[in-house]
Amino acid sequence: MDLQNYVRDIKDFPKEGVTYKDITPLLLSPEATNFALQQFVVKLKDMRIDKVVGIESRGFFFGTLLAKELNVGFIPVRKPGKLPAETHTESYDLEYGKDTLEIHADAIKKGEQILLHDDVLATGGTAKATCNLIERCGGEVVYCNFLVKLLFLNGGEKLNNYNVHSLIEY
Amino acid sequence: MDLQNYVRDIKDFPKEGVTYKDITPLLLSPEATNFALQQFVVKLKDMRIDKVVGIESRGFFFGTLLAKELNVGFIPVRKPGKLPAETHTESYDLEYGKDTLEIHADAIKKGEQILLHDDVLATGGTAKATCNLIERCGGEVVYCNFLVKLLFLNGGEKLNNYNVHSLIEY
Repeated sequence: MDLQNYVRDIKDFPKEGVTYKDITPLLLSPEATNFALQQFVVKLKDMRIDKVVGIESRGFFFGTLLAKELNVGFIPVRKPGKLPAETHTESYDLEYGKDTLEIHADAIKKGEQILLHDDVLATGGTAKATCNLIERCGGEVVYCNFLVKLLFLNGGEKLNNYNVHSLIEY
Repeated sequence: MDLQNYVRDIKDFPKEGVTYKDITPLLLSPEATNFALQQFVVKLKDMRIDKVVGIESRGFFFGTLLAKELNVGFIPVRKPGKLPAETHTESYDLEYGKDTLEIHADAIKKGEQILLHDDVLATGGTAKATCNLIERCGGEVVYCNFLVKLLFLNGGEKLNNYNVHSLIEY
């Protein structure tokens, strides 16, 4: 199965000149979703994963599915003000301005091995900030996986200390 | 298993006087997550469900899991400006102000039977707006399920034309 057939290009979204990779057709297909999930899992079969962290909000789709498949807990990393209990917070630079992510401070126990998941690896800023959050909780980021990796944005460079994997590359 | 043990009260969130029902401890437990999922699915075994719609963003957790378990497609309903292709849009009243939700216009085929999922049924405004979106796509809302129902907010009244179910009530 070629998963690229389930990712559609949307021109000029979110702004002119940008071509957005839309994964919603993949989610609409249970066959493609299962195929992608099994492609992820086959890479993980010799690893100890204690918990899965998914990044708000498109990282929640396969994040929850991966946690279920691995039979481990799921942790959402969210935008500021969304998580109700005590959090760690991490800010990171965007092209214009800053963005911030949070994790519940009690979600990870010291030494736990964490799988980070998001739908798209672009510049890597969001994923790197999430790695920092996981480490501040005492967790170890043993694997980062993504449905889609946009090679021309060099997001892998920010994550070159980590084990990075994606199913679809552009 | 008593799922209430996996929902924690956070006082004065998101504002003073409100007690927030935090489901993140449930997501942290694979046993509780599987138990909740099976409790949902047992109610659906005699129904035809063609697709699952989950509401941004906490409805994505069990929404994707339900779609996988039922072997059907998943559709995210999102805040404005997040879905890249052509959408239907629905606005609804909040206590102060308005909110808006969107669905991809091509996500549902006419006559498809849809399961709506969200984590918490509170006033019902979000769920009712989502029912409207599904119907504008030509879908039929055959079932609405929620992890948590807050009885004192009477959200069920807005959904009294629908088949509504929740696992935990307060």
